[in-house]
Amino acid sequence: MFRNKKSDFALPENVIYLDGNSLGPLPKAVPSRLQNMVQDEWGKELIRAWNSAGWMSQTGRVANKISRIVGAADNTITMGDTLSIKLFQALSAGLKLRPKRRVVLSDSGNFPSDLYVAQGLLAGLGDDYTLRVVAPEEVMDAIDETVAVVMLTEVDYRTARRHDMMKVTEKAHRQEAVMLWDLAHSTGAVPLSLSESNCEFAVGCTYKYLNGGPGAPAFLYARPDILEQATPILTGWLGHAAPFDFQLDYQPANSIERFRVGTPSVAQMTMLDTALEIYTDVNMHDLSQESQRLMDIFIAEIEAKIPDFRLTTPRAHEGRGSHVSFCHEAGYAIMQAVIEAGVIGDFRAPDIMRFAVTPLYIGEDDLRNAAEIMKTVYDSGIWQEPRFQTRNAVT
Amino acid sequence: MFRNKKSDFALPENVIYLDGNSLGPLPKAVPSRLQNMVQDEWGKELIRAWNSAGWMSQTGRVANKISRIVGAADNTITMGDTLSIKLFQALSAGLKLRPKRRVVLSDSGNFPSDLYVAQGLLAGLGDDYTLRVVAPEEVMDAIDETVAVVMLTEVDYRTARRHDMMKVTEKAHRQEAVMLWDLAHSTGAVPLSLSESNCEFAVGCTYKYLNGGPGAPAFLYARPDILEQATPILTGWLGHAAPFDFQLDYQPANSIERFRVGTPSVAQMTMLDTALEIYTDVNMHDLSQESQRLMDIFIAEIEAKIPDFRLTTPRAHEGRGSHVSFCHEAGYAIMQAVIEAGVIGDFRAPDIMRFAVTPLYIGEDDLRNAAEIMKTVYDSGIWQEPRFQTRNAVT
Repeated sequence: MFRNKKSDFALPENVIYLDGNSLGPLPKAVPSRLQNMVQDEWGKELIRAWNSAGWMSQTGRVANKISRIVGAADNTITMGDTLSIKLFQALSAGLKLRPKRRVVLSDSGNFPSDLYVAQGLLAGLGDDYTLRVVAPEEVMDAIDETVAVVMLTEVDYRTARRHDMMKVTEKAHRQEAVMLWDLAHSTGAVPLSLSESNCEFAVGCTYKYLNGGPGAPAFLYARPDILEQATPILTGWLGHAAPFDFQLDYQPANSIERFRVGTPSVAQMTMLDTALEIYTDVNMHDLSQESQRLMDIFIAEIEAKIPDFRLTTPRAHEGRGSHVSFCHEAGYAIMQAVIEAGVIGDFRAPDIMRFAVTPLYIGEDDLRNAAEIMKTVYDSGIWQEPRFQTRNAVT
Repeated sequence: MFRNKKSDFALPENVIYLDGNSLGPLPKAVPSRLQNMVQDEWGKELIRAWNSAGWMSQTGRVANKISRIVGAADNTITMGDTLSIKLFQALSAGLKLRPKRRVVLSDSGNFPSDLYVAQGLLAGLGDDYTLRVVAPEEVMDAIDETVAVVMLTEVDYRTARRHDMMKVTEKAHRQEAVMLWDLAHSTGAVPLSLSESNCEFAVGCTYKYLNGGPGAPAFLYARPDILEQATPILTGWLGHAAPFDFQLDYQPANSIERFRVGTPSVAQMTMLDTALEIYTDVNMHDLSQESQRLMDIFIAEIEAKIPDFRLTTPRAHEGRGSHVSFCHEAGYAIMQAVIEAGVIGDFRAPDIMRFAVTPLYIGEDDLRNAAEIMKTVYDSGIWQEPRFQTRNAVT
C-alpha cells in the first residue's frame, strides 16, 4: 500500500504542482543540510572536507542510493556531470564494444539532446558512422546486424509512451548490438530492473522525479561484465585507478568509477543525497501502481471536462511512464493561463501540455482540483489574450 | 594600491589558509544567497524559476564576470560542467580546425587530467593521432608544422612555473597550430589578457582563486573569429541554436553558447555568481603585484628558517603564478603535521608541499606566522610519528 510523503516537501500554497518530471519540488530537509555543508564543511573544514566531511566518497554513496531505485547492484552506478555527458560517455564506450559496426539506432521520441549528443560524437568519429532515427513503433524491426548501439529513452518526454525494456534489450542482444537506455523520465517514476534487463548501459537524471534540485548530477550504469572493455572517449582524473598519484598516463579504474571525469559538484550532490532519503522506504511497484491509478483519474476528469484536449499518452498502464499529455493547437497559451491559475504543468513544442503525476506529493484531490481549474480556464477563453502568447526562454 | 578583502570571507579561527589554489574559502555572502535560491526560487517558484529567477540567463551573466578577470570580451566565454569536460570540448574543436594534422603537443608539467582527456579523445579518434608530451622548457622547440593543437596549462600545478602566454601562442600560430590554454592556476591569480594573446581557446576552473565552492562550474573561452568553424565532438541541447524548439537535428548556436551541453547546476552557479562579486573592483595587476611581493617574503622566511626545504617555484615574478612550492622527501608527513598545527597547504606527489598566496585574504603577518609555525613543527620532528604517514583519500 502506498503512503504519500507530501509532508516531506516544501510545496508553496495555492499551487498544484504537476511538473515534477521537469523539476521536482524542494524536499524540506535540503536547506538545512545544504547550509551545514556550506557553512560547516566548506567554511570551517575548507580543503580538509574532502576527507573529513566525506566529500570524496559521497559520489559512490549517492550512486548506491540510486541503484536501489533502478534495480541495479551496488557499485554498478556512478554519478556526476549532466545526463548528456553521461550519455556521451556510454555511447562512446558502447561503440568501442562493437568496433566493426557503424550504426547507432534511436527513435524520434527520444529527447533531442540525446540525438544531438550522438550526432556530435558520430560526426567526430568519421564519415562512415550513421545515426538511424526511426519512429518509436518501428524500433524493434529496425534492430538489425548493422547496429552497434541501440540508444533509446525508455519513457517519451512528450507522450509518456514507454518502451518494453526487456523485449527491446533482448532483440538488441539477439542482433549482438549494445543496449543503452536513457531513464530520464523513468527513474523514480516506474519500477525498473536494470540487472534483469541485461542492458549494457543506462543513464538518467536526478532533478525530475528524484527531486535533486536544478542541475543535480546525472548517473551512469554499466553492466559489470563489460566494464573492463568499456572505455569512454571522455575520461578524467577521477576515473583514474589512482587519481592522486598524478601519473602522466591514464589508467582506468577497475570499477564503475572509470566513468567519472572531474571534481564533483559537492553542493548539488549534497542536495541530491538529502533528497534521496525520501526514497529510502519507497517500494517502486507500490508507487507506480498509485501513479497509474491517479493518471487514470486525471485522464477521465479532463476528458469529461475538456473534450477539446486530445490525449497523447497511452491508456495501458504498462505502456506509459508517469505523466499525462494532451494536445491542443493553442497548447502554449492555454498552459500559460493554467499556470497563472495555479496548476503548474509545462508545454513541449509543437502542441503538447504535460502533467506529471507524482504520488509522493500529489493525490487524487489535487488532480480533481487541477482538472476543475483547467476547465474553468479553458472555458473562460482567457488564454486567447495576447499576454499568454509570448514565449518565455524556458517553456 | 591593493586592498585586501579578508572581511569578505568566513575564515575559521586559528587557521592560516594557504590552500586557496585547491579550494578557495567561503565568501560570507554565499550562504544567504544560496539559501534564497533554494528556499525562495526553487522552493516557491519551482520550474518557473528558470524564467522568473533568471536561472536560464545566469550562465551568460556569470561568464561575463569571468571575462573581465581573464581579459576577454563579453560573450566570448561560457560556463558549465567541469574543467576536464570543457578542455575535452575545446581540444576536439581545435583538432577539427586542423583536420590534416594529427599531433597534440603538451608538457609534463600539465595537470594529469588534461593529459588523460587528450589520451581518451585521441584514442577514440583513431590510431594515427598522437599526444606528444615534452618537458615544459622544451615546448617552444617542439612546436612544429605537425602540431594541430598546443595544449598547455599556463601555471604549473606543482611548481607554479608560468609559461609565457604571448610567446608560446605566437610560436604556435607561426606553425599554424591552434593554441589551447588551461588557466586552472592562473584565473584570479595573475593578470591575463586572452584577447591580446590571440589564443583560440582557453579553459579554467572557478573553485580555486575565484572561491566558487567545491565543484563550481568551469569556463571555456573561444576566439570569436573561429567560432563558426569550432564544433566540439561533445554537444548538447543548450548549445543548440533553438533549444526549446526540440528539433531532431543539431544546429549549433551562432555564439559561444554552442559549447554549452546540458542543464547548468544552478546551486553551484549561484554560489559562484555571488563569490565573483568580490572580484568586481579588483585590479588584477595590483593583486598580482601584491601576491608576488608576499611570495618573496614567504620564500625568504622559509629559506631562512628551514634550510632543508628546497624551493621549486621560480624566483622571477614574471615566471610564476601565485603559489610557492617546496620539496622535501618527507613532504607528505610534514604537510600533515603542519596542517594539524593550523597552517593549511597541500601535498602533491611525489614530494611537493604547496602554499597558495592569495592577497584577497592572506597578508604579510599570516605568512610570517605560517613560516614560524612551520619551523616549529619541522624542528620538533613530530612529523616522523606514524600517524602522519597514512595517506588520506585526498592529499
